[in-house]
Parts: sequence; structure tokens; C-alpha cells
Amino acid sequence: MKAVVISVGDELLSGRTLNTNLRTIAEFLARFGIPVVRNCTVRDDVEEIIKIMRETLESADIVIVSGGLGITVDDVTREAIARAMGVELVFDEDFYNEVEKRMLERGVKVTEEHKKYGLVPAGFELIKNDYGLAPGYFYEKDGKILLVLPGPPHELRNVLENAAEKFEGLTKKKVLVKTVKTFGLKESDIVERIKDVIEELKPIGSYPIIPGMVDLRLTLVGEDEEKLEKEMEKKLDILRERLGDAIYGYDDDTLPGVIGKILRSRGMTIATAESCTGGLVANYITDVSGSSDYFKGGVVSYWNEVKSGVLGVSDVILEHFGAVSEPTAVMMAEGVRKLLGTDVGISTTGIAGPTGGTPEKPVGLVYMGVSIRGKTFVLRKIFKGDRLMVKKQAALNLLDFLRRKLGEVQ
Amino acid sequence: MKAVVISVGDELLSGRTLNTNLRTIAEFLARFGIPVVRNCTVRDDVEEIIKIMRETLESADIVIVSGGLGITVDDVTREAIARAMGVELVFDEDFYNEVEKRMLERGVKVTEEHKKYGLVPAGFELIKNDYGLAPGYFYEKDGKILLVLPGPPHELRNVLENAAEKFEGLTKKKVLVKTVKTFGLKESDIVERIKDVIEELKPIGSYPIIPGMVDLRLTLVGEDEEKLEKEMEKKLDILRERLGDAIYGYDDDTLPGVIGKILRSRGMTIATAESCTGGLVANYITDVSGSSDYFKGGVVSYWNEVKSGVLGVSDVILEHFGAVSEPTAVMMAEGVRKLLGTDVGISTTGIAGPTGGTPEKPVGLVYMGVSIRGKTFVLRKIFKGDRLMVKKQAALNLLDFLRRKLGEVQ
Repeated sequence: MKAVVISVGDELLSGRTLNTNLRTIAEFLARFGIPVVRNCTVRDDVEEIIKIMRETLESADIVIVSGGLGITVDDVTREAIARAMGVELVFDEDFYNEVEKRMLERGVKVTEEHKKYGLVPAGFELIKNDYGLAPGYFYEKDGKILLVLPGPPHELRNVLENAAEKFEGLTKKKVLVKTVKTFGLKESDIVERIKDVIEELKPIGSYPIIPGMVDLRLTLVGEDEEKLEKEMEKKLDILRERLGDAIYGYDDDTLPGVIGKILRSRGMTIATAESCTGGLVANYITDVSGSSDYFKGGVVSYWNEVKSGVLGVSDVILEHFGAVSEPTAVMMAEGVRKLLGTDVGISTTGIAGPTGGTPEKPVGLVYMGVSIRGKTFVLRKIFKGDRLMVKKQAALNLLDFLRRKLGEVQ
Repeated sequence: MKAVVISVGDELLSGRTLNTNLRTIAEFLARFGIPVVRNCTVRDDVEEIIKIMRETLESADIVIVSGGLGITVDDVTREAIARAMGVELVFDEDFYNEVEKRMLERGVKVTEEHKKYGLVPAGFELIKNDYGLAPGYFYEKDGKILLVLPGPPHELRNVLENAAEKFEGLTKKKVLVKTVKTFGLKESDIVERIKDVIEELKPIGSYPIIPGMVDLRLTLVGEDEEKLEKEMEKKLDILRERLGDAIYGYDDDTLPGVIGKILRSRGMTIATAESCTGGLVANYITDVSGSSDYFKGGVVSYWNEVKSGVLGVSDVILEHFGAVSEPTAVMMAEGVRKLLGTDVGISTTGIAGPTGGTPEKPVGLVYMGVSIRGKTFVLRKIFKGDRLMVKKQAALNLLDFLRRKLGEVQ
């Protein structure tokens, strides 16, 4: 059983929008053991959509179409689906009344165009959209499935989940996927460490997130779930033995999430003092639900007067060593720990670029500080890439540095 | 003249990797007036690639294939191209010697597999890759062009640029694209405002970023550049007249970038006080290169003791109205303005969720404060979506609120 995804939208072809919906759909289908074997992206053009639908329906068991279900003139998917399947668009009064009710509740001024929401290709079942007005459309015949989804990512995710029961039991195959998340090794270092056992690990994919941050993905397909799980455990043991503490988590684990668990289990609180990352570290930490249990707050000290006035970094240090220096990173981490009364303080100071670099202190140079109760540590790195990449690498490297130091300092 | 892009790679279909190369290729071709009308993504499978190549070569003038040019077993694009075109793979000794020299310089241990780099589909021209070992392959016949590119994004960009001269003068058509960026109107509001002039604006696409933040894209194609520019100006005038101050910028403008320009031109400085956005506002502001000219810093006050102790929010206010309230937003914005000595202070306090909501203060409720010199304003909103969506909407709504208030307060 194989699936083909058809993505509709000029914005995807112009490069304006990245096709994140493809990822969502692929991960959704993987849960049911169904691989996506092809994706075609076409323009908001009725004839184009009809053509690709006809080509695709011949060869694929499952066809998922996304996008073009709004009510503006370039939303033509509804019409294309009906024509490709040789059915009429029927006005579903009951459904439209529901949509209209929701629009009125939201204060939308209802116009004639909104009636498009009530049009349904004949013979299709409606799938509920809890976050938007355009529903999904589902069709099943002779073992073939066609599912049409709205394009906005959060609506697409919601409608897919609402259609989940349609995919259950379609195949006997189970797919077991495990992602091993690592930090601190380059992709080539990982290859070197596992090359003599690679046959036992295959199929294994490696996906670098930033330099030194690599996700490894193990995939197993079979019918006996218990057997698959044992096999997976064997592979994971090999990776744990070879990669050691570079592994920070699995699957949906994130670096700030893992750190949150450590802090919570040890009853510790944390604060941030950021210069070059400009709030990104605090933002990562607070992306974790429940982070208010251990994250008291932070200071973004972009100007030196904030470093000295709020965080208490000494003016002598700032003058003598400069804002981008090891002692400044130390005093920022210790300063914010004292200011907010936390167990841990972490800091960044560096040159995000593209301007501001010098031969001694080039763009990309960042000092990252970690102060845990009485002890303070500093990591110095020079990151490559543009301003946003430097910020991102600095924030993530600091979090991994913290993870490791939390393991050392009791 | 139309182009089709074929992307090769299991990782693209599993959703593991986003197809950023499609964007790069589309933007490259747009420079030459060539639209991408379709993209197909297929697995690392020789037969699949051959099939899609044959289907595509029939209908498209320009076919660009990317990925699968490495030397591991799943890199099969070279072979597929040769077979689809009915030619042999020829070993190019001179070229291989060059590649080998580069590998030795890099300290790569050369093995038999590396010889694959020397294989070239007969009749294809090599395009230089300055950043990697796999070159591009170019073929032109009877007005049709086939270009094969390596998959790693920075290598693909480089090889594309090295092939640029092949695309010059292919069409006389010029493409003029303008993006109009709006904040404050729902997509349906925009439709309502322009529906009577829609024919004069077509083709126009609308792309919601978050609810209330919509990009509009105008596209013009023709041979007379001057005429296109005049036409575009007319369309822009219509949009300006209909959408007014909802338009915050054009093309690459960003909300924090636009605010930065206003602050810089007026010689003003700014500071942030964030609760529920947890550093995201400061992060957006500091994504702008040169933001250190006007952004002094900020405070993330997650715990109430930070709101009172650092920002000076009164305990009475916190007790009586709660942390998520209008007076707290006011005192945070004013407090950080005083603490850091800036002209402007902005604040957020709310419930990002998914927990912590009450009937009176539901998840998604956010107060956003803007304090400009003596005057302070508060915006109250309830955002839908998950934790990250609430943070993002709160941060961007605050920035737009600031943009508007900067226009009012002199």
C-alpha cells in the first residue's frame, strides 16, 4: 500500500513557502505503515490539478491532496477534484449553515463568496476541521482512498487527525521508527564510530540539524511488533555504546525539554543572561510547556550599560577584556544567577554579525557561560554562517554545554 | 518557456528534510523569467527516476533534477539520467583526477567507490561544484534543457550559479513580482476590501502567515520592463488606497525590521519586558542586523518576583489584578523603560498554555503593552492555537501594535 501526495499552490512552486505539509502527511501515514512514494506540487490551476490527479489515481492506492480549499479565486481544488472524479459539486445546506454559524460567532461579515464552503464533491464524506472553515473531503472506492485537505498547516494537521480512523488496519505492516538525538559529534565523527557495525544498524539515516547536532533515524518494518521492538532495542544498545553522552534524547525529546527534566528532578531553578543570542535561549527554554516551574526569567543585555547596570558585570572587565570575552561571560552568568536568585545562570556574549568582527574577534565568535551554584564554566566557539545561524548555534551549543555540566556538578 | 523540477531523495518524502532546494531553484529561474510549473519528488530508486524523467521531458522545456549524486548505494541519479536519456555512463579520467586531487588535499581516504565521481552521462557537459565533489551535468538539445544538480543546499546553489550563463537570453520575458505585507486584517477582510477591483489586481495571491498577518503577492509577466513597472505601480496604488496602514512593508521587509527603521530615524531606543512570550520578542528584534543601534536589552520576567523585583511591578497590582492583567502589562512596559533608560518599553503578559487557563483568563489571553516616553497603551487579545502559536502571535501582534503607536505618538 503506497501513497502519493499532491500539493497545490503557486506559493510552493515559487519558493515562497516551504512544503511543511508534506512532512506532516508523511509522518502521519508512517504511523499506519504507509510510505509516501511520490509528491507532486502543482500550480493553482484547474487543468493542471485534474491532469496530475488522473495520472496519480491510476498508480497509487492512497492519494492525498492538500491546499486550494479557500474561497478566493485561486482556490480551485474543490472544482478540480470534482471534475477529475467526474462528479458534481453539490451544495450541502446543513454543513454550510454550520460554517455560517461559526463565521458569525467569529464576527466574520458573511458574503456570497463564503457559500463556496458549502460545496462538496458528490459522494465525498466531510472530515471535520476544528480550526478553520474548509473541511476535508474523503472518498473510498475499490480499495483506493482519496483525501483532500485544507492548506493552512495547523488546519491540515487537525483534519488529518480527524481522518485517522480511516487509515487504521489498512495494512498489517508495522513500522517502528526511533530517532536518536545527538549533540557534540560531527556527522563524519559518527560515521567513523559506527562504520564497523553499520550492517547491524541498517537502515539508518543521519540528519544534521546544525553542525555538531545530528539526528539518527532507525527504521524497522515487519508484522511482528514484539520482534521489531527487540531488534530496535539491540540497535539502540549499539548506538548507546558507541556514541555515549552525545545522545541527549530520543524521538520528540528536545534539548531544552531534556534540561527541563533534569532541573525539575533536582529541584533547581535557572535564569538566562543573553547578549548575542538576544533572547533566543530564553525563548527555547520557554517553548517547553511547564518551564515556569524552573525558569524564573532572564536578561537580554545587548548594551554594555545593561551588562554592568543590571547584571553587575564590572566596567573594568568590559573595558579591559571587552564585552565579548571569557570574564564577561562568567560575570553575566553569575550576575543573573544572583539577580534572580536561581541555582543556575547561563550566558552568551559574542558577535552575531554580519558586521562588528575584528581579526582578533571575528564574526561568529561566542563565549557561553554556565554557572551552577558556586561553579562557573565557559565554552568558546567560532560559528560559521549568517546572523541567524550564529544565534541558533550559540543558543543550542549553550544548552548542550549546560546539559553536560549539570551531569558533572552535583 | 516552463520548468519542471524533479527532486530525488527518500528523506524528502519521509518528511525528514524540507525541500529548500526547490525554493533556491525557483528563485534562480525567476531571474530569467522562467516559472517552475511543477515539482515532483521521488525516492532514491532508479526505475522511479527514469519513469518521472521520461514523463517530464515530454512536456517541459527545462528540467532540473536535484539530489542523489553522492557515491553511496542509494545515490542512483547518475545511472537513472543516463538510462532515461539512452546514453552510456562514461568515465572521465581527467575530471576524476581533479576530484581525487581535491580529496587528497582534504585528507579523504580514497577508495574504489570514489571512482563514481568520474562517471558522466555521455554527451553531458560538466558544471563546476566549488564546494563539493559531485559536479552538475548539463544537456541541451532541440531547445530543451536538462540540468542535474547535487543535493546538498550550498553545493546546489553554487552549481546553479556556475550554470547561470546557460539560462541567459532564453526568454525575452521579464517577471516582476512584488509582495505587499499586511498586518491587522483577516484574509476575508482583505477579500472584502478589494473584491470590486480584483480584476485590476490579478494575478494576486494571498498568503496568511498567522491570523491577521497576510502577505499579498502581485506578479506581472511581459517583455517591456518599463511598462511592467508602471502597471505594478498602479496595482500597488490600489492596494495602498484599500488597505491603508495595514500595509507595513514590501518584499523582504519584516515587522521588526520596519520598526527598527522607524526607531533609528527618530533616534529612539527600545527595551522589552516579556512574560508569556519568554524572549521571543527580543529574539525577533535582534534578528535584524544593526539592531544594537536602538535595542538596549530586555527582561524576561517569568516569575512574579522578577516582575516586582527587577521591573518594579507593584505587589499590590500583582495580587489584586493578577500577573495577566492590563495594569501589569502597563507597569512592565514602563518598568523596563525606566530600568534600561530607553524611549520605548514594550511588554507581554499572558497564558501561553496548554495549562494555566481559567474561565476568566483562558489559555491564549495576552495583554501587550507599549510605553512611548510618557504614554502607555495596552492591547488585549485571545489567541487560538498551541503554546508556540500563542507565543508567536503575541510577539508579532505586539510588534504591530508598537508600529501603529509609533505612528501616532510623536
